[in-house]
Amino acid sequence: MTFLDQYHLVRKHTEDICSLLQPEDHVPQPVPFVSPPKWHLAHTTWFFEEFLLKPHLPEYNVFNSDFSFLFNSYYNNVGKRVLRANRGAITRPSTAAIIEYRHYVDMHMELLLQLKAGHEDVNQLIELGLNHEQQHQELLYTDIKYILSCNPISPVYNEDINWENQHNIEEGFITVEEGVYEIGSDGEGFSFDNEHNRHKVYLNQFEISKSLVTNGEFLEFIEAGGYSDFNLWLDEGWSWVNENQITAPFYWHKAEEGWQYFTLSGMQDIDPNAMLTHISFYEALAFAEWKKMRLPTEAEWEVASNQLNWGRRWEWTHSAYLPYPGFAKPDGAVGEYNGKFMINQMVLRGASCATPEGHSRNTYRNFFHPDERWQFNGIRLVKP
Amino acid sequence: MTFLDQYHLVRKHTEDICSLLQPEDHVPQPVPFVSPPKWHLAHTTWFFEEFLLKPHLPEYNVFNSDFSFLFNSYYNNVGKRVLRANRGAITRPSTAAIIEYRHYVDMHMELLLQLKAGHEDVNQLIELGLNHEQQHQELLYTDIKYILSCNPISPVYNEDINWENQHNIEEGFITVEEGVYEIGSDGEGFSFDNEHNRHKVYLNQFEISKSLVTNGEFLEFIEAGGYSDFNLWLDEGWSWVNENQITAPFYWHKAEEGWQYFTLSGMQDIDPNAMLTHISFYEALAFAEWKKMRLPTEAEWEVASNQLNWGRRWEWTHSAYLPYPGFAKPDGAVGEYNGKFMINQMVLRGASCATPEGHSRNTYRNFFHPDERWQFNGIRLVKP
Amino acid sequence: MTFLDQYHLVRKHTEDICSLLQPEDHVPQPVPFVSPPKWHLAHTTWFFEEFLLKPHLPEYNVFNSDFSFLFNSYYNNVGKRVLRANRGAITRPSTAAIIEYRHYVDMHMELLLQLKAGHEDVNQLIELGLNHEQQHQELLYTDIKYILSCNPISPVYNEDINWENQHNIEEGFITVEEGVYEIGSDGEGFSFDNEHNRHKVYLNQFEISKSLVTNGEFLEFIEAGGYSDFNLWLDEGWSWVNENQITAPFYWHKAEEGWQYFTLSGMQDIDPNAMLTHISFYEALAFAEWKKMRLPTEAEWEVASNQLNWGRRWEWTHSAYLPYPGFAKPDGAVGEYNGKFMINQMVLRGASCATPEGHSRNTYRNFFHPDERWQFNGIRLVKP
Amino acid sequence: MTFLDQYHLVRKHTEDICSLLQPEDHVPQPVPFVSPPKWHLAHTTWFFEEFLLKPHLPEYNVFNSDFSFLFNSYYNNVGKRVLRANRGAITRPSTAAIIEYRHYVDMHMELLLQLKAGHEDVNQLIELGLNHEQQHQELLYTDIKYILSCNPISPVYNEDINWENQHNIEEGFITVEEGVYEIGSDGEGFSFDNEHNRHKVYLNQFEISKSLVTNGEFLEFIEAGGYSDFNLWLDEGWSWVNENQITAPFYWHKAEEGWQYFTLSGMQDIDPNAMLTHISFYEALAFAEWKKMRLPTEAEWEVASNQLNWGRRWEWTHSAYLPYPGFAKPDGAVGEYNGKFMINQMVLRGASCATPEGHSRNTYRNFFHPDERWQFNGIRLVKP
Repeated sequence: MTFLDQYHLVRKHTEDICSLLQPEDHVPQPVPFVSPPKWHLAHTTWFFEEFLLKPHLPEYNVFNSDFSFLFNSYYNNVGKRVLRANRGAITRPSTAAIIEYRHYVDMHMELLLQLKAGHEDVNQLIELGLNHEQQHQELLYTDIKYILSCNPISPVYNEDINWENQHNIEEGFITVEEGVYEIGSDGEGFSFDNEHNRHKVYLNQFEISKSLVTNGEFLEFIEAGGYSDFNLWLDEGWSWVNENQITAPFYWHKAEEGWQYFTLSGMQDIDPNAMLTHISFYEALAFAEWKKMRLPTEAEWEVASNQLNWGRRWEWTHSAYLPYPGFAKPDGAVGEYNGKFMINQMVLRGASCATPEGHSRNTYRNFFHPDERWQFNGIRLVKP
Repeated sequence: MTFLDQYHLVRKHTEDICSLLQPEDHVPQPVPFVSPPKWHLAHTTWFFEEFLLKPHLPEYNVFNSDFSFLFNSYYNNVGKRVLRANRGAITRPSTAAIIEYRHYVDMHMELLLQLKAGHEDVNQLIELGLNHEQQHQELLYTDIKYILSCNPISPVYNEDINWENQHNIEEGFITVEEGVYEIGSDGEGFSFDNEHNRHKVYLNQFEISKSLVTNGEFLEFIEAGGYSDFNLWLDEGWSWVNENQITAPFYWHKAEEGWQYFTLSGMQDIDPNAMLTHISFYEALAFAEWKKMRLPTEAEWEVASNQLNWGRRWEWTHSAYLPYPGFAKPDGAVGEYNGKFMINQMVLRGASCATPEGHSRNTYRNFFHPDERWQFNGIRLVKP
Repeated sequence: MTFLDQYHLVRKHTEDICSLLQPEDHVPQPVPFVSPPKWHLAHTTWFFEEFLLKPHLPEYNVFNSDFSFLFNSYYNNVGKRVLRANRGAITRPSTAAIIEYRHYVDMHMELLLQLKAGHEDVNQLIELGLNHEQQHQELLYTDIKYILSCNPISPVYNEDINWENQHNIEEGFITVEEGVYEIGSDGEGFSFDNEHNRHKVYLNQFEISKSLVTNGEFLEFIEAGGYSDFNLWLDEGWSWVNENQITAPFYWHKAEEGWQYFTLSGMQDIDPNAMLTHISFYEALAFAEWKKMRLPTEAEWEVASNQLNWGRRWEWTHSAYLPYPGFAKPDGAVGEYNGKFMINQMVLRGASCATPEGHSRNTYRNFFHPDERWQFNGIRLVKP
Repeated sequence: MTFLDQYHLVRKHTEDICSLLQPEDHVPQPVPFVSPPKWHLAHTTWFFEEFLLKPHLPEYNVFNSDFSFLFNSYYNNVGKRVLRANRGAITRPSTAAIIEYRHYVDMHMELLLQLKAGHEDVNQLIELGLNHEQQHQELLYTDIKYILSCNPISPVYNEDINWENQHNIEEGFITVEEGVYEIGSDGEGFSFDNEHNRHKVYLNQFEISKSLVTNGEFLEFIEAGGYSDFNLWLDEGWSWVNENQITAPFYWHKAEEGWQYFTLSGMQDIDPNAMLTHISFYEALAFAEWKKMRLPTEAEWEVASNQLNWGRRWEWTHSAYLPYPGFAKPDGAVGEYNGKFMINQMVLRGASCATPEGHSRNTYRNFFHPDERWQFNGIRLVKP
C-alpha cells in the first residue's frame, strides 16, 4: 500500500463513521470532554492544513481563515481557540461545509505527497497526522455513543455493531519472573513521544490473568454491596460514588425486567459473559480490592503483553501517567501533544473495539482521569 | 378571516421563521433559558396535540408517543419531562421529522375545527394555543439570535432584518393627572389569566417620556463611568456587574474601530439614534438613576399607553410580577401557564419588533428576571 | 428618659445579648447571610464612630484605624471593606478587644452628646444609629441561633427563652372595606427612608385573620403531602424544595419520637399550638394555596394592623420590596441603607419576639429573599 | 527517655504550639483542607481514646460521648462523623473544655502505660498515635498560618519564628550512578504502612542539586514571564494559573515597596537568598521546565538523600503517590490511614521547618494534590 493509499484509507474511515449520522447529531457537546462529531471531522483536517499544507505546500491558500480558530483543539502555540467547553454552540459551518473542507485539504495533500515524496520530516508529520486522526476515530465512536445516550428515546447508531458483547477466549493466569526488563518504544515503526525513552525497570514476580473481568463478575460485586462498602474504595472514589450516586457501570440501567445497557445498537439486556466495559479507575480498583487482587502496573502489563490476548478493551493500570526517563517533548505546537497532560491521569494499556486497525501496539500509553468512563475500557487482574 | 385561516397563518409563520436555518442551527441550547429552534417547532405542536387533539378529537392516534415526554416544557401536570437545561443534547427526532409531526397535527386540527366548530371551550383552547405559539415565535427570534451570537464567526440569519436600528418618532413628555384608574383586561378579546382582574389603582400625577432611550444616550452613560459608579446600582445589580464584568449592553462589542453589536444581520456598527435594546433591569434602573429620573410602574404605563407610541421594545417597568387582585389560576395544566412564575421577576410592558402581528395589547404583562437581556427590551423614563 | 440614657440602654442591650456566649461562639459565619456575633458588636460601634464621631467630634482619634475597614458592612461610600462572605475567618481583634472599642466609642459619644445637645442633624444620626443597633440586636439573636444549630450537639444559648412556644390570643377574621387608604410614615417619630412617602392606595374589600398559622396547622399541611404537590408551589419554590430536599420548616427535625425543633433553649418537642416560625415565603405561599386562602399585601396589612395583635412574628406579605411613590434616598453613605436592596425580596410586616422594645411600628418594612428562613417569621392568612 | 516521657513530650508540644493563640483563633476553617486549631487539639486526643483507651483500658469511661462523633477525622470504620468542610461552625466544646479532655485522656494513658508496659501491640498503637500527633503538629503550624493570613490586618503568631528566611548551606550537584537500588523502610524504627515494602528499583544515572531553589531564583522566573508562558506548564496547571489568577507563590503580595510575604511573624519583605516555599507542584514543574531541568523521582531522592542536606522544606518529586509493591493496608480503622489517599496526589520527600524533632526519615512519603501550597514545601532540581 502506498503512503497515499494509506492516507486515503484513514481519511475515508472517518467519513464512514459519520455516514450513519444525521446533520443534527453532529452538533451537541453534552459534557466538556465529549466533542461534536463535526468538530472531529474538521479538527483532524485542520491538523493537516496547519502542520503540513501551510508550512510545506508552496502558495497554499487556506480554505477558510476562520477555521484555524474554530478547529484548533488545545494548541496554544497556534493562536487563539474556542474554549473546549463551548464547541456545542457552533452550528456553522455545517457538516456539509466541513466535508467540502476535508476534500479541499485532501486534494492539496495529494499535491504535497507528490511534491515532497521522500522528505522524511514531511512524512513523519503525515504519519503523526494519520495517527492523530485514528485517535479521533476512536473518540468519534465513544462521543457518538455518549451523545445518543443523552436522548431519552435511546436512538440506534448502527444495528449491527456488537461491541459490548465480546467474550474472553482464554482463562487462567500467566507467571512473569522477577528481574530487570525493558519497556517503551524501541523506535521501530510509529510511536508517540510519550512511549520514549525505552528504559529498564525492575519487576518482582507476578501472576496476571489471561481474561478480562466480565459483566457477570461485576454483577456479583454489585449484588454483594460493592458500591456501599467504603473499605473497598479510594477516598476520592468514595466521594465520587456518593456525589454522583453511582450504582453501576456507565450506560447501565436497572429496568423492571433486569439490567440493561445502552449500546451503539440501542438499549439491550446485558450479556453476563461479555467483557465488562465503561468503568472508572475507581470502580476497577474497588473491584480488584473486593476480589483480593490488584491491577497491573503499566510495566507489568507491557512485559506480559506478548502472552496475552488484548485489544477489545483499554485496560486500566495502577500507574499514573508520567514521563518516562529521558522523555523530551518536541519543540513547538507538536510538543503540546502529550506531555502537558501528564498529571492526575492513570495509564490504560492495550486497545479497544473502537481502535482502528493498525493503530495498536503494546507500548501505546492511553490515559484518562480516574473518574472517566465513556471509553471502552476494562479490568485485568493480577494476584496480589 | 376564518378561524382555520388564522390557525394556518400562525402555524405557517413559525415555519417561516425557521426556514432560514440549517439543520445544525436547530440543536444547541447554549444556556438554560434559550431553547433549540426545533424544540420550539415541536413544543408548539405538542400543545395542540396534548390539549386539543388528545382530549377532543375522537379516535386520535398520537404521532409518536415519545414526543409527549420530549416536548413538554414545564407542565408538571402532563407527566415526566426532559429537564429544561438538557434540551440541547436531543438530536433526534430531526428537524425534518418534527416538520412531519407539525403537518400531521395540523391535518388533525383541521378535522377538529370542522367537528367542533362553535364549541366555545375548544375555541378558547385553540385561541390559547395560537397565542402560545405566537409567544414562541418571539422566543424563536431571540433564541436564534442568542445561538448564532455564540459562534465566533458571527453568522447572518437574515441580511434584511433591521430591528436593532429602529428610531423614535416622537419626543417630549406626557402628563397624567392624579386619581383612581382602572387597569387590567376588561375581557374583550383574548387575554392571559395574569391580566385579570381588572381593578382600581390610585396614581399620583406623573410625566412620562414619549420616546425610548437611544444607543447614543446610553453611550453617554457608559462614557460617564456608569458601570463603575456603585451609587447608581442596586446591590444585586452591582454584584451582577462585577461578577460578570458587564461593561455594555448584551451583544455590544468594543472593536478597534468603535462599538459594534451583533444583530440578526450579523455584526454592525451601532446606530446612536436607534432605540437601545438588550439591557437588564439593573442597567435600566442604573441609567434612570444617572438621569435623575425613574422607570414607570406597570399601572402608570398602562394608564398612559394610549398616548404613547409603543411596540418596538418591551419596556422595563418598576413593578414586580405579582398577581392582580382576584387573580385565580385555572385548574389543571393550563393553570401552570403564568401564576407559578410570579416571583423574582419584573414586569415589561408593550411589545417588541419580534412580537407577531396581532399579539400585542396594552394590558399584556411580560416578565423576566432582572438580569435577563436577550429579549428586545428597552427603557422609557418618568420624571421623578 | 434622656437621650443619653436611651443611648446607654440600647448599647447595653447588645452586650447583654452577647453575655451568654463563649469567645469561640463569636467567630463563625456558617453562611454568608449570618454574621459572627463579635462582628455585630463591632459594626454597630463602627456606625457611631464613622457617622458621628469622625465628622462631628472635634479632634477625635479613632480607636484603631484598621477597624474602619474590618467592620464596614456594605457601605461602598466608606471605602474598601471585607467581603461579606469572609467575616468568619477574622479571629482578631478578639471579643475582649471589641468590648474595649465599644467602651471607647461610648465614652466619646457621651462627650458628643454634651457638646451637640440640641443639634438636630446630630440627633437624627444618633437616632438612626440606635435604630440601626436595634436591627442588629434582632439579627444577633437569629444569627446566634443559626450558629449554635450547626453544632451536632445542639448547645443551649439560654434555658429560659421560650420564643418558639408563643400562642395566639385571638381567633376569627376582620373585614376591611373597599376604598382609598393612606399608608407609609406620616413623619411622627423615627422612621426609615423606605417608609416614605406616605401615599394613597386603593384596596378592595378583604377579610384578614386575627391569628397566625400554628405548628399544628402546618403539620397538617406536611402530612397532607404539601411538600410534594407541585401545584401548590411557585416554580422557583418547587425547585428550591427539590434542590434542598426541604420537608419541614427550618430547625425542624423528625426524630424517632416525633417532630422536634432546635430553639435558643436547645432541642425541644414542637408545640402544636404555638405560632409557626422559620418558614420561607415559598412555604408561606404554598400553605396559603393549600388552605385556599392568600397572603395579605403590605398595604392591606398596614390598613388592618390597628385591629390586629401583632409583634411575635414577622409576617410574610405578598408584596415585593420596592420604593414607595416619591421615595428618595439620602445622599452619601446613609443612602445605602435601604434603597439598594429593593429587588428580589418580599416585604414582611409586624415585628418578632426578637425585636427590641420600642423598635416596632405598623409602617415598618422588613424584607428578605423568598427562600430565607432564619428570622422569626410567620403566616397570617386572608380570605381569597 | 522512657516511653511515658516521650508521650508527655509529644503531647506537651501540641499544647505549646497553641499557647500563643487566643480562643477565637481556634475556631475558623477558611477552606476545607485547613482545620481549626482546637479541632487538632481534640482529634489527636480522640485518637488515643478511640484506639487505645476504649479497647485496651478496662472500665474506661469516655470523657464525653459526643466527642467520638465531633472529632473523628476520616475514619469511616469508627461511625458517623462531621463532614470535613463543616468543622469551622463548631464553637463548642470550647478550647478550655478540650484542654480538660486532653488532660483526662493523658491521665488515663498513664494508667494504660503502666498496666500494659511491654505489650507490643499496645506500644505499636501508642507509637502510631504519637506519630499521628506529630503530623498534626506540623498541620497546626500551617493551618494557623493560613487562618491568620485571612485577616486583612496580618496578625503575628510569634515574633521570633524565622522559618521563611532559612538559607541553603551547600551548592553544586551530586552524581548517582545507574543501577538497581533498594528503597522503602527496612523495618528498623517507626514507619508508616505506605513506606513498605522495601523493594528494588532500576535507576539511570542522574545529577541532583545540593541546594533548594531560592526566592531570588524564583523572582527571576516571575520577571521572565514564567506565569504567562503556557509552554512551561502542564495543561491543568495552566488552567489553575488562569482560573485563580496566580502570579506568585502563596502568601506573596506585591506591595508598592516591593514583594512581601505573610509569615508567622507577620508581613515581611522577602529574603531573596532564603529557600523558596509555598509553591504548588504545578509551579515547581514550570520552574524546572524554565530552568531546563527536572524534578527528581521519589526513588532518586531517597537514593541520593544521604548525600544531601534536607529537612527545611518538603521537596516536590515527580512521582505520583501510589502503593509500593507488596503494600498491604492493615485491617480496620487504622487501614484508612494512608492507602485510601493514593490517587491524584504527588509525593514530597524530606521534612520541613514545621516538622517536629524526631519525626523525619529518608523513607517518609508525604503527599499533596498538585495545587496545594500551604505546606512549607520547596524545589530541588535534577539535571535532565
